[in-house]
Amino acid sequence: MSGNTLGTLFRVTNFGESHGPAIGAVIDGCPPGLALSEADIQAELDRRRPGTSRHVTQRREPDTVEILSGVFEGATTGTPIGLLIRNTDARSKDYGNLVDTFRPGHADYTYWKKYGVRDPRGGGRSSARLTAPTVAAGAVARKWLMQEYGVRIRGYMSQLGPIPIPFVSWDDVQGNPFYAPNAGIVPELEAFMDQLRHDGDSIGARIEVTAEGLPAGWGEPIYDRLDADIAHAMMGLNAVKGVSIGSGFDCVAMRGSEHGDEIGPDGFMGNHAGGVLGGISSGQPLRVSLAIKPTSSIRIERRSVNRANEPVMVQTLGRHDPCVGIRATPIAEALLAIVLMDHALRHRGHVNRAV
Amino acid sequence: MSGNTLGTLFRVTNFGESHGPAIGAVIDGCPPGLALSEADIQAELDRRRPGTSRHVTQRREPDTVEILSGVFEGATTGTPIGLLIRNTDARSKDYGNLVDTFRPGHADYTYWKKYGVRDPRGGGRSSARLTAPTVAAGAVARKWLMQEYGVRIRGYMSQLGPIPIPFVSWDDVQGNPFYAPNAGIVPELEAFMDQLRHDGDSIGARIEVTAEGLPAGWGEPIYDRLDADIAHAMMGLNAVKGVSIGSGFDCVAMRGSEHGDEIGPDGFMGNHAGGVLGGISSGQPLRVSLAIKPTSSIRIERRSVNRANEPVMVQTLGRHDPCVGIRATPIAEALLAIVLMDHALRHRGHVNRAV
Amino acid sequence: MSGNTLGTLFRVTNFGESHGPAIGAVIDGCPPGLALSEADIQAELDRRRPGTSRHVTQRREPDTVEILSGVFEGATTGTPIGLLIRNTDARSKDYGNLVDTFRPGHADYTYWKKYGVRDPRGGGRSSARLTAPTVAAGAVARKWLMQEYGVRIRGYMSQLGPIPIPFVSWDDVQGNPFYAPNAGIVPELEAFMDQLRHDGDSIGARIEVTAEGLPAGWGEPIYDRLDADIAHAMMGLNAVKGVSIGSGFDCVAMRGSEHGDEIGPDGFMGNHAGGVLGGISSGQPLRVSLAIKPTSSIRIERRSVNRANEPVMVQTLGRHDPCVGIRATPIAEALLAIVLMDHALRHRGHVNRAV
Amino acid sequence: MSGNTLGTLFRVTNFGESHGPAIGAVIDGCPPGLALSEADIQAELDRRRPGTSRHVTQRREPDTVEILSGVFEGATTGTPIGLLIRNTDARSKDYGNLVDTFRPGHADYTYWKKYGVRDPRGGGRSSARLTAPTVAAGAVARKWLMQEYGVRIRGYMSQLGPIPIPFVSWDDVQGNPFYAPNAGIVPELEAFMDQLRHDGDSIGARIEVTAEGLPAGWGEPIYDRLDADIAHAMMGLNAVKGVSIGSGFDCVAMRGSEHGDEIGPDGFMGNHAGGVLGGISSGQPLRVSLAIKPTSSIRIERRSVNRANEPVMVQTLGRHDPCVGIRATPIAEALLAIVLMDHALRHRGHVNRAV
Repeated sequence: MSGNTLGTLFRVTNFGESHGPAIGAVIDGCPPGLALSEADIQAELDRRRPGTSRHVTQRREPDTVEILSGVFEGATTGTPIGLLIRNTDARSKDYGNLVDTFRPGHADYTYWKKYGVRDPRGGGRSSARLTAPTVAAGAVARKWLMQEYGVRIRGYMSQLGPIPIPFVSWDDVQGNPFYAPNAGIVPELEAFMDQLRHDGDSIGARIEVTAEGLPAGWGEPIYDRLDADIAHAMMGLNAVKGVSIGSGFDCVAMRGSEHGDEIGPDGFMGNHAGGVLGGISSGQPLRVSLAIKPTSSIRIERRSVNRANEPVMVQTLGRHDPCVGIRATPIAEALLAIVLMDHALRHRGHVNRAV
Repeated sequence: MSGNTLGTLFRVTNFGESHGPAIGAVIDGCPPGLALSEADIQAELDRRRPGTSRHVTQRREPDTVEILSGVFEGATTGTPIGLLIRNTDARSKDYGNLVDTFRPGHADYTYWKKYGVRDPRGGGRSSARLTAPTVAAGAVARKWLMQEYGVRIRGYMSQLGPIPIPFVSWDDVQGNPFYAPNAGIVPELEAFMDQLRHDGDSIGARIEVTAEGLPAGWGEPIYDRLDADIAHAMMGLNAVKGVSIGSGFDCVAMRGSEHGDEIGPDGFMGNHAGGVLGGISSGQPLRVSLAIKPTSSIRIERRSVNRANEPVMVQTLGRHDPCVGIRATPIAEALLAIVLMDHALRHRGHVNRAV
Repeated sequence: MSGNTLGTLFRVTNFGESHGPAIGAVIDGCPPGLALSEADIQAELDRRRPGTSRHVTQRREPDTVEILSGVFEGATTGTPIGLLIRNTDARSKDYGNLVDTFRPGHADYTYWKKYGVRDPRGGGRSSARLTAPTVAAGAVARKWLMQEYGVRIRGYMSQLGPIPIPFVSWDDVQGNPFYAPNAGIVPELEAFMDQLRHDGDSIGARIEVTAEGLPAGWGEPIYDRLDADIAHAMMGLNAVKGVSIGSGFDCVAMRGSEHGDEIGPDGFMGNHAGGVLGGISSGQPLRVSLAIKPTSSIRIERRSVNRANEPVMVQTLGRHDPCVGIRATPIAEALLAIVLMDHALRHRGHVNRAV
Repeated sequence: MSGNTLGTLFRVTNFGESHGPAIGAVIDGCPPGLALSEADIQAELDRRRPGTSRHVTQRREPDTVEILSGVFEGATTGTPIGLLIRNTDARSKDYGNLVDTFRPGHADYTYWKKYGVRDPRGGGRSSARLTAPTVAAGAVARKWLMQEYGVRIRGYMSQLGPIPIPFVSWDDVQGNPFYAPNAGIVPELEAFMDQLRHDGDSIGARIEVTAEGLPAGWGEPIYDRLDADIAHAMMGLNAVKGVSIGSGFDCVAMRGSEHGDEIGPDGFMGNHAGGVLGGISSGQPLRVSLAIKPTSSIRIERRSVNRANEPVMVQTLGRHDPCVGIRATPIAEALLAIVLMDHALRHRGHVNRAV
């Protein structure tokens, strides 16, 4: 198992490199009878697509998805859904100067150490471009979860570098390229990014993802807890360095009398738990936070070595996102959808109670 | 797959309830030829055992392990290693008043929702007692990693509730019940805990775990990254609500020119990455942080409901850890050992390069 | 994954050696709410137990099972079911003369080649004794299948060495040690076995297993077809060298107009298919055949080598079944039960239609 | 896990329908550094391609494979290998009359029962066309096995309907459309097939597959024995109704003194075991036999029902193989290659001894 499949009953197998002929995914385990067309998937792909504002990479990839199998007369058949996205804007020459060196903070060093192969074309397999098949598969899960259980998955950026973004409204999220739930703060974010690009540097971000409407009972303790599988999926996303649930790291300084959410006849009176108790969903909204590190490909010169282990200075001139967190929201939503659908199927296979 | 197995090639299957006849694990995938005796495992079990100081639960469980299979004439045979730990101090009567109610913050509510079963005996399957088989299996992985690769795994508590614990020395860690790397701060921790017990409340904690000596190249992107599988294992530990790697959530406010660790002929010049780049080990020390929530079983009365959804007040009088984080360090070490050994085997199966 | 787990959602992990402290299994994935006691399991274990007639090994193992977990107040909880069987009649001295040599046809040669370990104690892990945990787990599956779907699993011996056993009646099967569905032929079978024991030789057998009452729709093509998973389970049983479905190898000489079972308003008009079409159950009775080779441990002297690859003569004097096929029927039934329950859970997870 | 992935470390995920846009596979787990081009794969695809003689379906599919990922500068990178084969000769109208009825012996009935979907286009997912991705993936495994271990995989037809085909020479196999190892018998086979086509009927066949050169030690008992995984793969092939190893069902009538292969300083003195003892390869040639049923789609009218369960007569007029066994040899070879490569990787991950 070399690690390119996500999920147990709803399984997504991802393939491709950023500069090869194509990328894609095979979804195995989608139940039959879900209405599905390429438009359903394209809508989500368009949300993560590069080139949509000056604050993200200017690489132009239409990311057009083709459904190769598993759908007949507009509905899933229960057989594998093959998804194909052709690469169209490779421009490998941008990376010519990187063939022999390693970018500080980048996976090119560890891929070379592991596989003995140096694929300089845009990061090859380690490129953030490989999140597109994940988003495509997530679109299927998202649609199924809404239809079968009324589960709604949404996310937003809660911090850009040093700037916290107070939550104002879900309505604000779609109106700006940052997925900021706060229209008023957008000019400050834009000014920050403009200066950052000018500096040739990059920045981290924090993303929140939620799922509302899911029933109590999903999750398979003790190891495959719902939150454990969410953590696995999220930490498997490029640049993520931290994952937390509910009050997250704030729980360290809290007392049990404060953190343990009391229960009344109308339900829980708080949600420090973030919707999971003992690895099983409680019926409250799921709340997940991600810490996303700054992009490692920057214009500023940095010390590194080449394959002969000689010291070199490295400067990355290709088209890169100065903040990968900006496009991370739809990807994190997709990952959450995949994990939830997988656990919905696992639960009904294992327990089969009315959920 | 109902979630009680951890790992792909080195697989640990956990069984048991806190108040049933026994708990244990089956390890499948341990290579032949590892010298192994019950003493190797017992040493680790003794580190997590309750009742060793006044700051942890006074439940007395000797936690004596018996090796049932997989070892012949003092060495592993390559076949499954069955591990058995008998429960000896059940005292189910302590839990009598909980049969019909749900503790705020506790898994008893969600287990009931999922399985339709209310097992009041000490939390049953959701008890922290089920970390003992994990620790036993981790002892095997720890020994193998040291012998085959010289990998050393250690951990410590870096914060107890509101009290940060500055790192002074590894030597300090074993000399106190908190796994605090700072002998000078122990009196303050003890005083804090004494007051907390007096209050009938509980508290969170933060734990750091590291692995030194592992080679570059372990991890199977894109989904089963080394850090993703670590996050899965750690978030699968009772009470953990956050996991981070390297600089963790601090990366949000950092620039790429600061976070990306530069490289020189003698190796990396920093370790913000925490030993993982692109999901693959870089050869630097692995650095993992855990946020552990306060115990949900406290003496303070809290609002809840019973199975008829009527409001009740709940007070938990059994013997519970007021800070589950105190005993979490050896458990987190065990989980890290299991994940690393699994990835070592996966790597040599998949790539088979000299590592 | 070193291969000691059977199933995907209903998972049986087997551990133990014939002459170690204990053997057993962990069942993960049994739904909650199944009434279960040790007596349910013991009944099946007693059917495969050695020492019940002069035609099987005279080794005396009570094979008493203990349920360690997963059952509370007489019903399954949905958590792992730990099953323990202590070894009580080891008598390792019987095997003393085998330490350094390899029995023709036996696994001791290949285990040594694979693991580099020579465990002479009764075959260690390769002993037929390790079918006891399989039978124990199968007892759980069998009970669940009957209760949830009315599925009935039965088997019989259809040939003993050169003697075909024409099917007369299911009633005959339990009245003789051979599981022969034909009381009239039993004296001939007994005489054959008496002569065989006198010769110090062993013999093969053929076993039929059936499942009636299962619905159409179980099986997950294209690779994990129902019959493919049955073949995997059956060929994973010691001494099995062939598995077939329905008309089996007879299909080679048949025409499509003869083999393809016609369908009428009242159902299929034949069952050459053996209950599976395209890897999915058709609703007809499942029909599986097994070819079981003669025991390799015989009293007759045979040419072999020792660990130094020097020629030796080998004669096996321990207590062995002269026909392992005699006790194979309840084991094959157990394997079929495990596979069917696994596919029932997989089907309801994946498709969730009324079945 | 809905069953469309084969293998544990070398994993093949298959997608597609016979009359959709495309079919294909994703191989995950191929080690880096294997020289690989589309020509390597195309050669094997051409061996199973339809339309190459008058004895197989006249459907014309060029079956041109495109490598989408996982290969860089002519060698594998260790990342997933995406393989795409476009469908070009759909002609769905041939199947128009089947929309509402079920062919006796065919999977269309059980697919409809399972998924609730009636996809009449050439059998959709259950079509033998879906063996093409398997063959493509097998080509990769076959090349790797030869290069790394010198393993050679070959197969032939040993019986066509009532006509046994005595083995004469491997040289004869490639010179005729039947993969018959006996040039002299080919005219008889051709005459038989000509008459069969004239009758509008179909016929079964028996195939032998062997692997030579593999080391002792592959296989993971007790459940995932090498022969168990071979049985799973082979029984997962369309139309296979029986699988056996070595002397197969003949073992039923054999004595231990005859079946157990004696060993001398130069190796085994026979191969009734077919290269596997106790589920582990012995170093002798692997010998596998398959029974393949006659095609269910025939011109002869047969009794069946429609979706309203009313009696109808069904006659299948599309282009079908009158003997699917004729093209089965390269497919069975591919399946054996996939299983062996998977076990080679599992063995070196788990045991890592020189093999």
